[in-house]
Amino acid sequence: MTTRGYATGPAPNAKWKYVPQSGSYPQGFNVGGIHCGVKKDGKSLDLALVTSELPCSAAAVFTKNVFKAAPVVMGREMLDKRKGYGIRGLVANSGCANAVTGKGGMEDALAMGRGVDKLVGEEESSTLVMSTGVIGQRLPIKKILDGIPEAYKILAQSHEAWLNTAKAICTTDTFPKLCSKSFTFPGSSTTYKIAGMAKGAGMIHPNMATLLGFMATDAPVSPEALQNILTHAVERSFNAISVDGDMSTNDTVALLANGAAGGKTVEAGTEAEAVLRAVVTEFAEELSKLVVRDGEGATKFVTVSVKDANNFADAKQVASTIARSPLVKTALYGRDANWGRILCATGYSGIDGIVPEKTNVSFIPTDGSPELKLLVNGEPENVDEERASEILAMEDLEIRVSLGTGKGGEAAYYTCDFSHE
Amino acid sequence: MTTRGYATGPAPNAKWKYVPQSGSYPQGFNVGGIHCGVKKDGKSLDLALVTSELPCSAAAVFTKNVFKAAPVVMGREMLDKRKGYGIRGLVANSGCANAVTGKGGMEDALAMGRGVDKLVGEEESSTLVMSTGVIGQRLPIKKILDGIPEAYKILAQSHEAWLNTAKAICTTDTFPKLCSKSFTFPGSSTTYKIAGMAKGAGMIHPNMATLLGFMATDAPVSPEALQNILTHAVERSFNAISVDGDMSTNDTVALLANGAAGGKTVEAGTEAEAVLRAVVTEFAEELSKLVVRDGEGATKFVTVSVKDANNFADAKQVASTIARSPLVKTALYGRDANWGRILCATGYSGIDGIVPEKTNVSFIPTDGSPELKLLVNGEPENVDEERASEILAMEDLEIRVSLGTGKGGEAAYYTCDFSHE
Repeated sequence: MTTRGYATGPAPNAKWKYVPQSGSYPQGFNVGGIHCGVKKDGKSLDLALVTSELPCSAAAVFTKNVFKAAPVVMGREMLDKRKGYGIRGLVANSGCANAVTGKGGMEDALAMGRGVDKLVGEEESSTLVMSTGVIGQRLPIKKILDGIPEAYKILAQSHEAWLNTAKAICTTDTFPKLCSKSFTFPGSSTTYKIAGMAKGAGMIHPNMATLLGFMATDAPVSPEALQNILTHAVERSFNAISVDGDMSTNDTVALLANGAAGGKTVEAGTEAEAVLRAVVTEFAEELSKLVVRDGEGATKFVTVSVKDANNFADAKQVASTIARSPLVKTALYGRDANWGRILCATGYSGIDGIVPEKTNVSFIPTDGSPELKLLVNGEPENVDEERASEILAMEDLEIRVSLGTGKGGEAAYYTCDFSHE
Repeated sequence: MTTRGYATGPAPNAKWKYVPQSGSYPQGFNVGGIHCGVKKDGKSLDLALVTSELPCSAAAVFTKNVFKAAPVVMGREMLDKRKGYGIRGLVANSGCANAVTGKGGMEDALAMGRGVDKLVGEEESSTLVMSTGVIGQRLPIKKILDGIPEAYKILAQSHEAWLNTAKAICTTDTFPKLCSKSFTFPGSSTTYKIAGMAKGAGMIHPNMATLLGFMATDAPVSPEALQNILTHAVERSFNAISVDGDMSTNDTVALLANGAAGGKTVEAGTEAEAVLRAVVTEFAEELSKLVVRDGEGATKFVTVSVKDANNFADAKQVASTIARSPLVKTALYGRDANWGRILCATGYSGIDGIVPEKTNVSFIPTDGSPELKLLVNGEPENVDEERASEILAMEDLEIRVSLGTGKGGEAAYYTCDFSHE
């Protein structure tokens, strides 16, 4: 069986460029990651802790899998009960998913949350919990409960602290996934920050199906607006990446807003909500793309963009079908300009209104040079194979399919190639 | 780019056992395969011809892909026009799919059919056409039209002739797929024959998405009964195999019945139809399983059987989701009893009424030894890893998932593992 070690030391050279050397992080969040002993190697970071000095608005998107891990069930119940108000932080472990663990697993998830609640002085459950790793095994809960106060002691707001937190949610990721950026609202001088991390990688490793995302901002946002924003963003980011195509029992993306930077609260349906939605969507795209880049054996990052469909949903359906096609992914690795496979996938995507005579397929190089047309209005172009393999040799590539409906619906999906590694 | 040569000589040892050394074939069908020059190597068989001495009832199931190759469009129109009566044979070429070839491609497909019609003395279009190979290129139509009379000269009813015909529809298959068997109807002494061939293989080769199937029987069957039978059979065979998960522009499965063995015509809705449906379904399963066994790099043949679902459609949906999961396929290759992945796939299959507490997962060995229970009523078993890898080391394996609905709906899906080959 192929095995990849847990990501501990410096990331492999090829991926190192995706790990930030610095960042600017939201106010009022204290973070840290330690090794508490879930991971057997005795050293890899496996417990991540985030606390907010102020109570946060919280939003989350959870896996749709029928088999939901204990922390997913617990987190949904808590957010429903609290209507997204008064959340104080997040505790996450890697190495064990606490999935398919029955009543005992629920107790473990609740105990993890309580462990943090006590430290921040909350009576009521106010801490999100995430777990990732092996399915069907109970957590070494004592190690985790002993670890939480240890992690609490070393919480900080530094880049290093955020990087360690990002490392602590990794399983077989080859590099930690961390992003941060600043933003402002039109007509306001206040600078806000958003930071986030993601966990997830590659195609074919036993425990790699799980996708975790965590984002935090110091902007003040109502829970309703925050959930609108996150749902929109996830649909275009974490739910628009195809790595192994499976959906795990633990997939969770959460967003906290503590308002520590002050200013007027962003309410649902306002212009400010639209501004923040754009900021968070772009940020979530950036984070989720790092997961694709960590695809096991992936040599290429591919954006499949579908234009001029009837609507966003149709465009995404086609983009997703192309991105998930093993034949397309393999052709990309083979540097084979096989538009036939792209067309095939388009043709069985199952949406209405695809007209062969209106369908266009192109490769878009990332160096700004002109697109390479493969199929124009259903007619194959006389493709310059040399130019095609030039483009296919690039690490980043866009496949563009235009359906010519005149409706302008569009969506993008992000994927990697299937290599033989 | 990985390349596999066209199957020409003896199949590789490992697969040789699946190529029959003899067979008993239906009366009144004359078949043959030759090299006409579509394949560039100058020798591989690439033109298959089947003619019936008597006009046949014909049924076919075609690809649902929006982008249909010319022979698919032509075949559907012909069968509609003739209501399935009076079909005289099949001509098929490998090496070029005649797909995405516009009006010229349609003319080529019609010309191929006419080439055979003339030889068998039919005015009206009465020959099915199939093509498989590269997409987006015109057929070398002159070579094919010159080849048809050559093929016609060497038509025969021998095992060798059937085997050559099966070889002539192969592209990158590593062995020809041919089956034949005899059957009778209750209360009748007449022995009937059915023979058939399939084309299709493996996961990741450029031109391998296409799946072709052709079956012929000397039983007398009405076109309506024949289509009922074929639709039922294909749903449980050619549409129940997962190799690369893609659906091509050319996929076609056809069934001809010429009645040469005499007896009473099988009509729709009769008991005889039910008998023949069972015969053809089992036969089609046998043929389609050979396609799975030819999966590129496949080391294992896996039957995913789902029991006790609400109905056949739900059961098939779950079986198909498990069979197509890259994580499941890779775990199988890794001999990793990762029931978590099987459960995951079950959980995101999208059907209603999956209850974790009622879900069971087992491995069924093929040597008759007892099943290995992995999950019982949603609770993980303490799995004997040694026993698990024993079972996973077998070439054939069954994964059984029982949904415990009490409704008894069941279905099977056939797949292979993902190896690193």
